[in-house]
Amino acid sequence: MTGVETELTRGAAVALDERDPLRGFRDRFVLDEDSIYLDGNSLGALPRTTAARLAELVSEQWGRRGVRGWEEGWLDLPISVGDRLGGAVLGAAPGQVVLADSTTVCFYKLVCAALDARPGRRVIVTDVDNFPTDRYVLEGIASARGLELRWLEFEPSGGPTADAVASELGPDTALVTFSHVSYRSAHIAQLQEIGGVAREVGALTLWDLSHSAGSVVLALDADGADLAVGCTYKYLHGGPGAPAYMYVSRKLQDELRQPIWGWLGRRDPFEMAAGYVPVDGIRAFASGTPPVLGLVGVDEGVRVVGEAGIGRIRDKGVALTQYAITLADDRLAELGVSVASPRDPVRRGAHVALAHPAAQELCAALIARGVIVDFRRPDVIRYGLAPLTTRFVDVWDGVEALRELLAT
Amino acid sequence: MTGVETELTRGAAVALDERDPLRGFRDRFVLDEDSIYLDGNSLGALPRTTAARLAELVSEQWGRRGVRGWEEGWLDLPISVGDRLGGAVLGAAPGQVVLADSTTVCFYKLVCAALDARPGRRVIVTDVDNFPTDRYVLEGIASARGLELRWLEFEPSGGPTADAVASELGPDTALVTFSHVSYRSAHIAQLQEIGGVAREVGALTLWDLSHSAGSVVLALDADGADLAVGCTYKYLHGGPGAPAYMYVSRKLQDELRQPIWGWLGRRDPFEMAAGYVPVDGIRAFASGTPPVLGLVGVDEGVRVVGEAGIGRIRDKGVALTQYAITLADDRLAELGVSVASPRDPVRRGAHVALAHPAAQELCAALIARGVIVDFRRPDVIRYGLAPLTTRFVDVWDGVEALRELLAT
Repeated sequence: MTGVETELTRGAAVALDERDPLRGFRDRFVLDEDSIYLDGNSLGALPRTTAARLAELVSEQWGRRGVRGWEEGWLDLPISVGDRLGGAVLGAAPGQVVLADSTTVCFYKLVCAALDARPGRRVIVTDVDNFPTDRYVLEGIASARGLELRWLEFEPSGGPTADAVASELGPDTALVTFSHVSYRSAHIAQLQEIGGVAREVGALTLWDLSHSAGSVVLALDADGADLAVGCTYKYLHGGPGAPAYMYVSRKLQDELRQPIWGWLGRRDPFEMAAGYVPVDGIRAFASGTPPVLGLVGVDEGVRVVGEAGIGRIRDKGVALTQYAITLADDRLAELGVSVASPRDPVRRGAHVALAHPAAQELCAALIARGVIVDFRRPDVIRYGLAPLTTRFVDVWDGVEALRELLAT
Repeated sequence: MTGVETELTRGAAVALDERDPLRGFRDRFVLDEDSIYLDGNSLGALPRTTAARLAELVSEQWGRRGVRGWEEGWLDLPISVGDRLGGAVLGAAPGQVVLADSTTVCFYKLVCAALDARPGRRVIVTDVDNFPTDRYVLEGIASARGLELRWLEFEPSGGPTADAVASELGPDTALVTFSHVSYRSAHIAQLQEIGGVAREVGALTLWDLSHSAGSVVLALDADGADLAVGCTYKYLHGGPGAPAYMYVSRKLQDELRQPIWGWLGRRDPFEMAAGYVPVDGIRAFASGTPPVLGLVGVDEGVRVVGEAGIGRIRDKGVALTQYAITLADDRLAELGVSVASPRDPVRRGAHVALAHPAAQELCAALIARGVIVDFRRPDVIRYGLAPLTTRFVDVWDGVEALRELLAT
């Protein structure tokens, strides 16, 4: 269902929900019935299983088993949850994904690892509308190492294309890094093609999947991806500040070395022996003690996503965003709202950017009415349509709320 | 009570517990009554309030408020819990402690920050028995920057002294870094004095407080400390893999800059504007999104510690370790066990290292009997006597279990 051919009424939205093959999944989450939650692209809703899993972890494992918990499963979590995430969401075979740290720290580690693997090359390519923390990390590293950051710029509803990127690459390019789905416009970058043009000049590619994992289909292995990071608290429903993940393609694991040499990335960490020797495989990209509470949150979130199936989630994301765009065109355009996300569903993630000069005030007014959206500078209201928890009727109500604000 | 003058019987141990001014605090924790938990120096016990606090966070805040939680308190947690920790435990005035990341990542960030503030100096001083992850991080940074690591070595029950350190320092010394309490021997380093000799040559000092915070009295501000990091899941009862903390003395906050420039360390992070500009104060040492679940665990742990009072906790730690040493001398020495912790209580933290050639097998046998201790290479059984949850009778029973194993 990519073209929504339906009457534009609330009743028709309810009818779309009744035909939604994922409709049962909303009940798997705790949601505040007094609000319309359209910000699952910022913080995903709470899976019902998570509270019980955390309670068991805390009371039974930590409370009764204490330090023995490490050997009774906790130490495996960064890899076991990583494998589950890789298989269900990222298109990654086991042994290539590890949960750790924050997205910011994971991104830092893989940028450094990539640059160290391309010594002498002094250019990093990214775009001015990449997610802020990625831009800041790159600035810090470029400043410390005396490298050049090449900032590409795209139209507001656009994003990196292979052609645009290719023209910026050369023998001096060490790293190419973008968000796969733009946090602002939801534009989907050409992951495979951009990786290909980077590879032609010998550069590595690092993707930030924070706004894609759990909302669009990823096939990192099949697409020949090098490196990726992402957060787990958006479409993966891991919980506020849940740990992030790194994907390092098996083909690069022996070549790359990350800069934060912690005990959990060492061979036989509990030997506590002299001299850092990285452990084999993806675990070498870990550094400190794993955040166990956060990890079980991610585990539960990824389980629900995997059960629903990323293909069905993607289909519903396309349908929801198409429906939002149809409504915006029909009911908001005349009130000065324009669609600032790609109109081609193939290039659009699971949120829709609606632009209006008064976006900031409108966003605050929507939230005051219980329509939880968010504002992105300078003029965008983001409608995040997390497929597992958003109904068509929520889109209807969210658009109507904006229409009422603008019409009065 | 530093000299324990008591009959060496189980009944006398019970009597010591009855006179313990902190005896009521054990009931504030969940403990497995089928085992004797002497590993609170590795993973502290679960405070009873933590399960309820986490359940409320998950079900009410995440579940009902969703993304609004960030503005309703979550974003403040790294600083508010840091201030609480600073005041109750570290002897640090507000605005100098931030919770973030793992100890490993915090340590990495402050080492880099210190080295960048001492350009041209190429020596880092530490010791061969520093905690493994600290040693590995230092190796990685020294390797990346072409610096020299000067490894001091002390006797097994010893640790760094100002005199020993002073003789290794010079105009080329950038950084001096040790664990304040040794993870193996429990030796307490001379924090103030070592900081003083480092300052004389213009070097910065960075302390790892993982084994001291919550077990010994710290006065970072009064002692003129520069930098410190530590973990929260030992004597601070924050939970498995709970976030770590950084202390940066106010006098250094404008001078030092950490290497991982993430959005949460930027001025006005939600502006998402171009160009990283560090926010004023300690928050500039943060990088990524705060791990909210872990942070409330730390908050609860620190609250209990603060309520008990670090002075009383320290007194009990001295009494418990003194009692363990008395028992070891009286009942284990003849069986080949020697005390590998400092005998001077002023220089001893809240655990006791007992050395025996068969320590590894003995440790496994103790755990099989429900006496939860841990083994540290090459020959140490650690008896961790976390003051809030360990009774004198636990020490008695733990020593007796070892005596029985050795006597049969």
